[in-house]
Amino acid sequence: MSHSILSKFFQPSSVAIVGASPKEGKIGRVILENFISRFGGRVYPVNRNYDEILGLKCYRSVGEIPEAPDLAVVAVPAPEVPAVVEELGERGTRAVIVVSGGFREMGTAEGELLERKLLEVAKSYGVRLLGPNCIGVFDNWNGVNTFFTTKMKIPPRGCVGIISQSGAFAIALMDLMAHRGIGVSRAVSYGNKIDVDDVELLEFFGKDDRTRVVLMYIEGLREGRGRLFIDVARRVSEKKPIVIYKAGRTARGGRAAASHTAAVAGDYQIYRAAFRQAGVVEAESFDEMLDVVRIFLDQPLICGNRVFVVTDAGGVGVMLTDALTSVGFELPVAPPSLRERLRNELPPHAIVDNPVDLTGDASDERYVRVLEIIAEDGDADAIVVAALPQIPNLRGTFADYVAELKNRWGKPIVSLVIGSKDAIEIAGRLQEKGVTVFESPERLAKSLRALYLYSMFRAGKRCC
Amino acid sequence: MSHSILSKFFQPSSVAIVGASPKEGKIGRVILENFISRFGGRVYPVNRNYDEILGLKCYRSVGEIPEAPDLAVVAVPAPEVPAVVEELGERGTRAVIVVSGGFREMGTAEGELLERKLLEVAKSYGVRLLGPNCIGVFDNWNGVNTFFTTKMKIPPRGCVGIISQSGAFAIALMDLMAHRGIGVSRAVSYGNKIDVDDVELLEFFGKDDRTRVVLMYIEGLREGRGRLFIDVARRVSEKKPIVIYKAGRTARGGRAAASHTAAVAGDYQIYRAAFRQAGVVEAESFDEMLDVVRIFLDQPLICGNRVFVVTDAGGVGVMLTDALTSVGFELPVAPPSLRERLRNELPPHAIVDNPVDLTGDASDERYVRVLEIIAEDGDADAIVVAALPQIPNLRGTFADYVAELKNRWGKPIVSLVIGSKDAIEIAGRLQEKGVTVFESPERLAKSLRALYLYSMFRAGKRCC
Repeated sequence: MSHSILSKFFQPSSVAIVGASPKEGKIGRVILENFISRFGGRVYPVNRNYDEILGLKCYRSVGEIPEAPDLAVVAVPAPEVPAVVEELGERGTRAVIVVSGGFREMGTAEGELLERKLLEVAKSYGVRLLGPNCIGVFDNWNGVNTFFTTKMKIPPRGCVGIISQSGAFAIALMDLMAHRGIGVSRAVSYGNKIDVDDVELLEFFGKDDRTRVVLMYIEGLREGRGRLFIDVARRVSEKKPIVIYKAGRTARGGRAAASHTAAVAGDYQIYRAAFRQAGVVEAESFDEMLDVVRIFLDQPLICGNRVFVVTDAGGVGVMLTDALTSVGFELPVAPPSLRERLRNELPPHAIVDNPVDLTGDASDERYVRVLEIIAEDGDADAIVVAALPQIPNLRGTFADYVAELKNRWGKPIVSLVIGSKDAIEIAGRLQEKGVTVFESPERLAKSLRALYLYSMFRAGKRCC
Repeated sequence: MSHSILSKFFQPSSVAIVGASPKEGKIGRVILENFISRFGGRVYPVNRNYDEILGLKCYRSVGEIPEAPDLAVVAVPAPEVPAVVEELGERGTRAVIVVSGGFREMGTAEGELLERKLLEVAKSYGVRLLGPNCIGVFDNWNGVNTFFTTKMKIPPRGCVGIISQSGAFAIALMDLMAHRGIGVSRAVSYGNKIDVDDVELLEFFGKDDRTRVVLMYIEGLREGRGRLFIDVARRVSEKKPIVIYKAGRTARGGRAAASHTAAVAGDYQIYRAAFRQAGVVEAESFDEMLDVVRIFLDQPLICGNRVFVVTDAGGVGVMLTDALTSVGFELPVAPPSLRERLRNELPPHAIVDNPVDLTGDASDERYVRVLEIIAEDGDADAIVVAALPQIPNLRGTFADYVAELKNRWGKPIVSLVIGSKDAIEIAGRLQEKGVTVFESPERLAKSLRALYLYSMFRAGKRCC
């Protein structure tokens, strides 16, 4: 049931925008423009002061709209919000996003009271409410977009679903993802979450076919939701990875969270234990968050911890060896039979071990031959291809081969590329074809470890 | 003494290139072209098969050059190298870079023998030798450049000196620094280091006025050089920061290092203890290495661990609080007097604490007023300015003010900016004026901690 109503927040056929406005800079204008530009369904601006806004007929009240809109967005001053929601309930609308602020987050008795009243009204009509004090919903497939910013670049359509307790963070993150070409399916930020909360949204994203990876930013769950969160997260994790950035991990950070969203950040160790139980992948840093998302989008699950490294620069081989073994991977020593095959392919100064060092006169062909042999004989669970493309004979054609090999082999192949012009071009070719590219050995290793931990969860092995 | 000869490697008046060649793709051609394009001194190609190469008179032997060149670069097959160095010694040249490979790194008895012979010849003539099997020297001021690659973008002239045990890594790193606009003074990679080694080079960079930060990649020091390294590093650290990325930290990484440069990676814990004693800043990851270099280039030393955070997004305030306190910084709670001043400047929904949350309707003017008050009254040792510029009223003019405040205040001010278009523009403005920009709260915090540790070393407080 909850799923079918929640879907109205993301895929409504019609929407009312209460507080729509023609005035530049007004939230009610930005949201209306968002819908006009990308939403395929019917749009009903509501504002008692206008007959028409931006070419659309404007309604004086909710009651005048010719149908019960699937979704309503409310952007009127806080004191008017409960009455509007009541009208919407009367009209038959069951999904309401309240973007207006001025409730509990004010820290005043009036704010608190108003918020309680709002919840009562919603409950009495069976209205599901997102907010108040939130930026609401962005749906990259249906064009629902209540994010009231004109400065966010829209990310490409893709498979990452975002649930963020911080609205500003969700916007900045999507702006960055757009810049990096990482695709988003849908995003939501729920503000004071007096009704619909992160746990329900997580369940919805779990069932959403458009979403292959769920990315969450949370400060704290609502009191008493811990048990349900673990149950839901575990069920979702059985199908798709959940990557969580938990803010308010330190005592001082918890204090900052309390003044930000009134969240009870709680004991971080308890959250960590819950994440582990539920197969949730925790990103411990901002970089890790997007790195890990990328590796999940690109790579198949990994079956074990044995990694082979192929490089054209010995130093980078050493760096990768340190980074990978530090997080628990094994770099198996090349067995004699493999050494012999490699030796036959390579000049005497190349190093036939693991890492395999093709050295500075490496060519695309040398990469291809060596990778083929390792995929065949290396008994590896994953391969890391490091390429410093400043060497003379590397043109970058190996990139297409690596992508083809990855598909044929069916196991993870990731890459490390460092530099400017040629590096950017080669990295682009690799990334485009799903061979996740990193610039830092340590970030590569951490991301591969996240893939490993999640894969073990999926395989029914609880390890760490 | 050693300093005066070492300076010939970087600032010679004349250079002989033995093994210079007109043939495309030959190392001897790439190096000659490098000198022709940027070196201001006299260039003498030496090759018995040519009278002229690329428009320059070519000499049949070293003996025929009309002067004793300050520096010689040797790029002939390994077996011929000792005789060439002997000729150079006879001619009076005292600084020789041997780029040729084919010595001890081959792992053969002949290679070993040849290397010993080479060292004997050099010693008997008082020739200082860099290499063999190295890419040698890049000097961004004098145009010495023996890095035989045509694919490296040249970084701008600047203040970072690079000493790298891995040649390919030095090239990739400089290519990346060029891309990011981080300036380099000089760089050197010494290959098998049978004579001039990292310790001597570190001493040279310590005395080099063009170099304000020394960046080192090392796998292992030469046997018996540990004590001297600590002495030299400590002396250099008293004047300028040394940032070291130590590869071969794990047992498995040490094995990879042994097959890469025959380095004895040694016990990492001993290196760490040595680094701490000597005030060396260790970068534990590739990202950290360049982050830390940037903060040293931009920021003054820091006097204590008290940090104020100003943000327009609560979530990012929480993230920064976690990250900063996790590495040992204190975010002092705003005292009542400061709160009152801030309260008078800010709308009621803003949060006047630390972090100060200017919220999503923040303007450039709001940033300016609040930063001014905090610099005056905040009793802070550093300020972090976080700006998610997707909010409507932020145009970015605050960037110039922040830079001006930093100079006036005399203490570190760093910034966090996340996003695409506007973010990139604002980040560029801040970075250009020396307000170090980060995208990740964790990397910002780690870099600020490196600045703190080094500042304490300089202040005579050994802390960790």
